[in-house]
Amino acid sequence: MSNIRKTLSTVSDGADLAELKTNMNVDYVIHYNIPSNKAKPEAEAGFVQLIEVLTKVGLASEVRYGDESSLLVFVKVASNEYLASQIYRERLQDWLFSVRASAPDKDIAKSFENEPVTEAERLRLVYLLITKPKNEGGAGIAPKKGRWKYVTSIFPLHDNAFNSSWIKAWSTKYFLDEEDLDHIRDKFGESVAFYFAFMQSYFAFQLFPAAFGFAAWLILGRYSWLYSIVTSLWSVVFFEWWKKKEVDLAVQWGVRNVSRIEHPRTQFQWDYEVPDPVTGEPVKYYPPMKRLRTQLLQIPFAISCVLALGALYIFCFGIEVFLTEVYDGPFKSYLTFTPTIILSSILPILSTILTKFAKTLTEHENYQTNDAHQASLITKIFIINFITSYTPLFLSAFVYMPFGNLMLPYLHIIASTARKLSTEKSITALDFQINPDRLKSQMVYFAVTAQVVNVAVEVVIPYLKRVVVDKFQEKRASLDPKTIPDAPAEHEFLQRVREEARLDVYDVAVDYREMVVQFGYLSLFSSIWPLTPLSFLINNWIELRSDAMKIAMSSQRPIPWRSDSIGPWLNALGFLSWMGCLVSSALVFLFGGNSEGPGGDPSNVNVIGLLLTILFAEYLHLGTQFIVRYALGQIDSPGLQKERATRYRIRKRLLEETLGPDAMKETVPPTPETGERIVLVALKNEERKLSTGIIGTPEQM
Amino acid sequence: MSNIRKTLSTVSDGADLAELKTNMNVDYVIHYNIPSNKAKPEAEAGFVQLIEVLTKVGLASEVRYGDESSLLVFVKVASNEYLASQIYRERLQDWLFSVRASAPDKDIAKSFENEPVTEAERLRLVYLLITKPKNEGGAGIAPKKGRWKYVTSIFPLHDNAFNSSWIKAWSTKYFLDEEDLDHIRDKFGESVAFYFAFMQSYFAFQLFPAAFGFAAWLILGRYSWLYSIVTSLWSVVFFEWWKKKEVDLAVQWGVRNVSRIEHPRTQFQWDYEVPDPVTGEPVKYYPPMKRLRTQLLQIPFAISCVLALGALYIFCFGIEVFLTEVYDGPFKSYLTFTPTIILSSILPILSTILTKFAKTLTEHENYQTNDAHQASLITKIFIINFITSYTPLFLSAFVYMPFGNLMLPYLHIIASTARKLSTEKSITALDFQINPDRLKSQMVYFAVTAQVVNVAVEVVIPYLKRVVVDKFQEKRASLDPKTIPDAPAEHEFLQRVREEARLDVYDVAVDYREMVVQFGYLSLFSSIWPLTPLSFLINNWIELRSDAMKIAMSSQRPIPWRSDSIGPWLNALGFLSWMGCLVSSALVFLFGGNSEGPGGDPSNVNVIGLLLTILFAEYLHLGTQFIVRYALGQIDSPGLQKERATRYRIRKRLLEETLGPDAMKETVPPTPETGERIVLVALKNEERKLSTGIIGTPEQM
Repeated sequence: MSNIRKTLSTVSDGADLAELKTNMNVDYVIHYNIPSNKAKPEAEAGFVQLIEVLTKVGLASEVRYGDESSLLVFVKVASNEYLASQIYRERLQDWLFSVRASAPDKDIAKSFENEPVTEAERLRLVYLLITKPKNEGGAGIAPKKGRWKYVTSIFPLHDNAFNSSWIKAWSTKYFLDEEDLDHIRDKFGESVAFYFAFMQSYFAFQLFPAAFGFAAWLILGRYSWLYSIVTSLWSVVFFEWWKKKEVDLAVQWGVRNVSRIEHPRTQFQWDYEVPDPVTGEPVKYYPPMKRLRTQLLQIPFAISCVLALGALYIFCFGIEVFLTEVYDGPFKSYLTFTPTIILSSILPILSTILTKFAKTLTEHENYQTNDAHQASLITKIFIINFITSYTPLFLSAFVYMPFGNLMLPYLHIIASTARKLSTEKSITALDFQINPDRLKSQMVYFAVTAQVVNVAVEVVIPYLKRVVVDKFQEKRASLDPKTIPDAPAEHEFLQRVREEARLDVYDVAVDYREMVVQFGYLSLFSSIWPLTPLSFLINNWIELRSDAMKIAMSSQRPIPWRSDSIGPWLNALGFLSWMGCLVSSALVFLFGGNSEGPGGDPSNVNVIGLLLTILFAEYLHLGTQFIVRYALGQIDSPGLQKERATRYRIRKRLLEETLGPDAMKETVPPTPETGERIVLVALKNEERKLSTGIIGTPEQM
Repeated sequence: MSNIRKTLSTVSDGADLAELKTNMNVDYVIHYNIPSNKAKPEAEAGFVQLIEVLTKVGLASEVRYGDESSLLVFVKVASNEYLASQIYRERLQDWLFSVRASAPDKDIAKSFENEPVTEAERLRLVYLLITKPKNEGGAGIAPKKGRWKYVTSIFPLHDNAFNSSWIKAWSTKYFLDEEDLDHIRDKFGESVAFYFAFMQSYFAFQLFPAAFGFAAWLILGRYSWLYSIVTSLWSVVFFEWWKKKEVDLAVQWGVRNVSRIEHPRTQFQWDYEVPDPVTGEPVKYYPPMKRLRTQLLQIPFAISCVLALGALYIFCFGIEVFLTEVYDGPFKSYLTFTPTIILSSILPILSTILTKFAKTLTEHENYQTNDAHQASLITKIFIINFITSYTPLFLSAFVYMPFGNLMLPYLHIIASTARKLSTEKSITALDFQINPDRLKSQMVYFAVTAQVVNVAVEVVIPYLKRVVVDKFQEKRASLDPKTIPDAPAEHEFLQRVREEARLDVYDVAVDYREMVVQFGYLSLFSSIWPLTPLSFLINNWIELRSDAMKIAMSSQRPIPWRSDSIGPWLNALGFLSWMGCLVSSALVFLFGGNSEGPGGDPSNVNVIGLLLTILFAEYLHLGTQFIVRYALGQIDSPGLQKERATRYRIRKRLLEETLGPDAMKETVPPTPETGERIVLVALKNEERKLSTGIIGTPEQM
């Protein structure tokens, strides 16, 4: 154990990092809520427990006031020894799962000397110490869950010096380079770095369809075969290329295979324990059939999503068509906004309800690991977003345009009913006409308006909110007579921490979702308006910076998680790329040539042609995918080179240690003992048997 | 280097293995051809070189007469030291590529003591010594290639005792167990063992469609929707299950990731050498664009395959239809065999030519590694086989049945022309009728007759050939006055070796091909005749044993190659499983309900329904695949358990070595130093600051 003592100095070096200095050497802040109602005693008892469990895992804590009903617990590693042993365990684990090529040195002190603990590693391990289940050696604190329901959040403090230089640097350059990503990785972990790497690659790849789309818009017009095929091929190339790039980045960042290490979920409920068939240790068991039963609820969930959102859309759609194209009564110019108002007020509510329901459902599915939980949740969120995002366009393209005229009789009924109810004769049934520009104007909305609104909602509003709330809280605190003033030396620091405690937790999944949905618009519908990719390109340049600002200014600093890929979003991208081939080919078939499309009459549609087009598009997609995958497989990459280099180095060292300094040159074999005696005799009939035969005589055998 | 001396005893223990004793301690036999024509001096010079290069890599050799124009070179390891260093290098390589979990011991002697050299390992390494390029430390002998064109074959000798007990054991049991596969693996390497494991799994899985197909044949009849869907689902389940099983077997056999180790091809031609960006060593370089240009030749190759075979089929098909259903002249009963005779005589020739061409093309693609070469060759062979095997059924189902009546006018022309040319009036144009049983009788042919013929061709004929040729050669040798008689002690042994030298090289790809083609019949066409799976089940029971016999009796002993999967055939299976969904759904749609199908009139076909069916079948396939993959991913398996156990063992050992004997129990954290001092003061307003703050004062910072 004396080795560990030696390592203390190395691990606690982390505390000398510049960043921690400005943060008063605090590793984490736990924001603890103390309600002023009847629950106060329970919350206070929980707080005592909190301090106790933190102490048990070697974390020192100190308490300050948050706002009037909460406390801030500052946590710092007290037992560097225990942290060191946890880090060592993790490194060993990494090696066993092939994340690292070589085992950590058996001498712990030397191991930490060779590979000093990085800031991200320290923060991650401390977070795990706080949150891991007790039987895994952690304190088992799960924010907002069960007995820890008063723990509002656990967060590290922002490094403001880094943040401001980061935002400054990014807002003055067009492209990010590897160094930029490395900085993100060092500060916020590979999980966030992968998001920015993806964004950057996606942005760079978009240059091509943006230019091509612009040219197509000038020359080819809408619904061009060429544009549609080129975009589909592009989406396949981008998807396959990213799959390779992702692996490459993981190798370069030393996190390859990290996803194979499963982190147990603290909230996992087990039915009973069974001994592991391998190690004999007790393992928590939850019957998979029971989980399957819960998972099957996904099917009614998906159906009800479709029904709820579909009904809403059809309702608004009906009103819209009626108001814009049939109704001609009073207030027409105001009434036409009705559907937009209904949609934009109900949709976010419905979407939030569904997302919440998805979270509850995933919670009930009771996964054993965080990864499985996350993957299942993301799948559900993707389904919700797929439906909310693309239904309007699907309805317009495949219902309104081909079947629009079939609505005519119903519109007449509504119109005459309205006429009867109304005393004025102002509701005149106009001659209903399919609006051929409907699809395009929708697409423009999604490609431009919605993206601008989104940036505003994501960055401007949280920033304003922060400023206003901070001012308000400061005022309130200074007016409240019960508040005990901060020590002057701490005041500024504590104010900053209070501000950060009020911020949202950054969820990278929200940003991925947005980009994946955008990729879907591009892949599925951009043939409607070939300027779409150009608009997205511009948006993404801003998005990349606004996401950085979101992390730096209006979110708590993220926990530096590791990851070796963009995770379940990869499947979503693949699905959209495939779906894009089908949908865009169908769109071009329906509306290409004559820009009016089927003009509301389904008998105008050549169904056989449509189906053949879809089939053909799909096989083209599969074929392209096969070829692109093969071609990319042939290309060398920095990650692969790094892997080869590591292998070569270890091989060389080991061979030289065992076989001598010339072991890497394989061309000098030793002279065998019997070799020279062999002469070509058998052929020349001089002798039949060689002097000393290998083929033994019976006696020799 | 003294360590290596110690290992000599361990490695040369291999020579004491029972098997090698009966084979006079010979590791390999090289069969060298000495033509009696003008090339004789060249061949003799080559022979001298052969002995020299063998000697250089530490192999002793001894020469005996083969037949009248060939020599047998018996090769045995002379420098155990060099072999040991090669084995050690390979084990190290395995570890670097994650094939092994732990590095070989740094003390070579100890390493060989812990893991003795197995028979398969020794044979594989000796073969590599003989065939590896010189700069990789081998002798660089490539049979039948370039300067080694007189080397006919290089083969190890059969272990007759094992072979006879093997054949005896397998012919008396219904199912093979893991032990049986382990025996195969020990003798013939994982490559052959994987084939038998696949066969065994395929056979076991076939029990279900055989039973279901039998029931469907009794109750549902042909072209049943239910049967078709069940078979499609079955093929998806089997394919996904095998993918998992394959990985599992590789883990259990300790060959996981072996495919990542690339074996350089001896025949690789490089244009120039460039320094490796990683190691700085010179690397042979062949421009990928140059290879791509050759690879593009695959497209005209595939097209000419389709054209050549398609034309042949259509020609025979036309004759057949004419003769059986229109012609009524003399010799009708004999003439109806004409197409069969043409097909069965031309098809093997054409197939051989195409295969040979595929080999040449692959050779010209000049791959750097054996795996890439093999994969490319197998893809081409699969394409040829796909076309030769399924074209007759495709033509009958999708050309003859729907469009048959359109042939009528042409048949009349032929008939009347024939009538004019013939003096007799015996060619009467019968009323042409689509034969609704044509598809079924073809299917019965492929499912029963062809399989029986195949077993005969594969086993009986080579066996008879072997017996006859051996007798003939013996006779001839005894009559030839120039032959020098063998030493009496060696005669029997040499006769056996001469027999084995005349045998074919066993190519596992041939056997895979047969099974994959069979899987295709099952998956694509078995709804035509639901007894197909039952017939295949019976055939495969025999096939499994006859393949064993083929290896034991009529092939040279295979080189014990390693592999971690069935390789490129996996893709072929996946493709056929996918294609099966499309084709069988189309068949059922066309011919289900009324057994006559479209009855020769294309206007009877509901094209929209057909296309929708195909689309639906495809999405059903993709959906099922997704679900089955997910479900199988949840299941534990012996291979995964073994991986976990290895990891747990190493982790335990290392943690105990470094952190003390209790390191695996993570529940005992140390008591921190500052923990106890923390009390819940801030809440109670008694004190605002804790005794020793973590939050440093400005001075402390």
